[in-house]
Amino acid sequence: MRITTVGLDADDTLWHNETIFRLTQDRFRDLMADVADPETLNARLAAVERRNLALYGYGVKGFTLSVIETAMELTGGNPPGRLIADILAAGREMLAHPVETLPGVDQALAELSETHRLVLITKGDLLHQEQKLAASGLGDLFAAVEILSEKDASTYVRIFERHGTGASSAAMCGNSIRSDILPALEAGAYAAHIPYPLTWAHEMADAPTDDPRFAELASISELPAWVRNLG
Amino acid sequence: MRITTVGLDADDTLWHNETIFRLTQDRFRDLMADVADPETLNARLAAVERRNLALYGYGVKGFTLSVIETAMELTGGNPPGRLIADILAAGREMLAHPVETLPGVDQALAELSETHRLVLITKGDLLHQEQKLAASGLGDLFAAVEILSEKDASTYVRIFERHGTGASSAAMCGNSIRSDILPALEAGAYAAHIPYPLTWAHEMADAPTDDPRFAELASISELPAWVRNLG
Repeated sequence: MRITTVGLDADDTLWHNETIFRLTQDRFRDLMADVADPETLNARLAAVERRNLALYGYGVKGFTLSVIETAMELTGGNPPGRLIADILAAGREMLAHPVETLPGVDQALAELSETHRLVLITKGDLLHQEQKLAASGLGDLFAAVEILSEKDASTYVRIFERHGTGASSAAMCGNSIRSDILPALEAGAYAAHIPYPLTWAHEMADAPTDDPRFAELASISELPAWVRNLG
Repeated sequence: MRITTVGLDADDTLWHNETIFRLTQDRFRDLMADVADPETLNARLAAVERRNLALYGYGVKGFTLSVIETAMELTGGNPPGRLIADILAAGREMLAHPVETLPGVDQALAELSETHRLVLITKGDLLHQEQKLAASGLGDLFAAVEILSEKDASTYVRIFERHGTGASSAAMCGNSIRSDILPALEAGAYAAHIPYPLTWAHEMADAPTDDPRFAELASISELPAWVRNLG
């Protein structure tokens, strides 16, 4: 068998994440309805997030701080009533939110784990990602877990060396073209894109449809057969 | 040589950290001088941090969120003027704060790295710890870096298996009895405590002075000789 190792992204590949972020944004928009219209709010929040990304990295805590900063800016430093307390509470709820695996994930991973080494490869808050994996019940299916601050080609080379038989006999699967697909292909691995209905603007990129090692799958249920067919 | 691998804590072992947290607390206390006396403020902040620890884990972002929450509580939801914006700015400054290695660190690590495998073993924000290691200039001296959400005996067993020749031929060095010393000893490793002038209340514990595998060192400069003398 040519492929020995399968890397899997976590947020929006194995379980819902962006949906929860968007719900919090909707709630934030409601709280701020008297202060700013939705377009202004979204544009300002996106700008603050972009400005803070190098310092905060990915994850709920940095997002919550950026939301508070946006609220302070838009209210001229005088947020009404319980706005900041409500934002803090929304952030804590995101961290404590129950983990809901996406359709087909449990079965696809159970099947793949019998024949392949599975490695979870994800960005975000260290503690929060560990907690989500534990809550998902999928932890035992993974031979290794790598939580990273950024995903680039050298990351994938190193991880597939450490936990597998190198990138050329590995496949990566995830919902982000920018983080999961392009750098994995550059590392020499195969890569399967499984789109999630919502994608964070920061993660948008064109699919490398001409690459023979790339595939677009409609659901993770198609992943075991795709991996088997690679050789 | 009996000891093959030396684990090193990062914050307040290799570089200043708690000092920077305390400076921020002092600044926060000044900002809040009209709202609460220092004792009330410190007690309330400690209580909020404790309550949030399971959700936020360790690191600057969670600390900043807890400071904001404390400010909201103490001001009855009406923080004066620029208080919240100033707290956000203080948090960002902590993240961007220059890394200052402690006296003797560079030389001790350069010396030890010639004869032993060095592993950085630290808690905290993933991205921030990576950035601090890069800024410290010490990165090349380490054979491996492990950034964790919590340090317990099983963590040390696993890390010294993965990056060394097992805990029985490893030594751990750090400023926290609770996180660096007790669990490393429990894992079967040797452990050297190097006190830092300030210790976070959460990390306080009695030194295991009766354990033959334990040592208290006055400075990291004593570490290479102590490791050599182990065998």
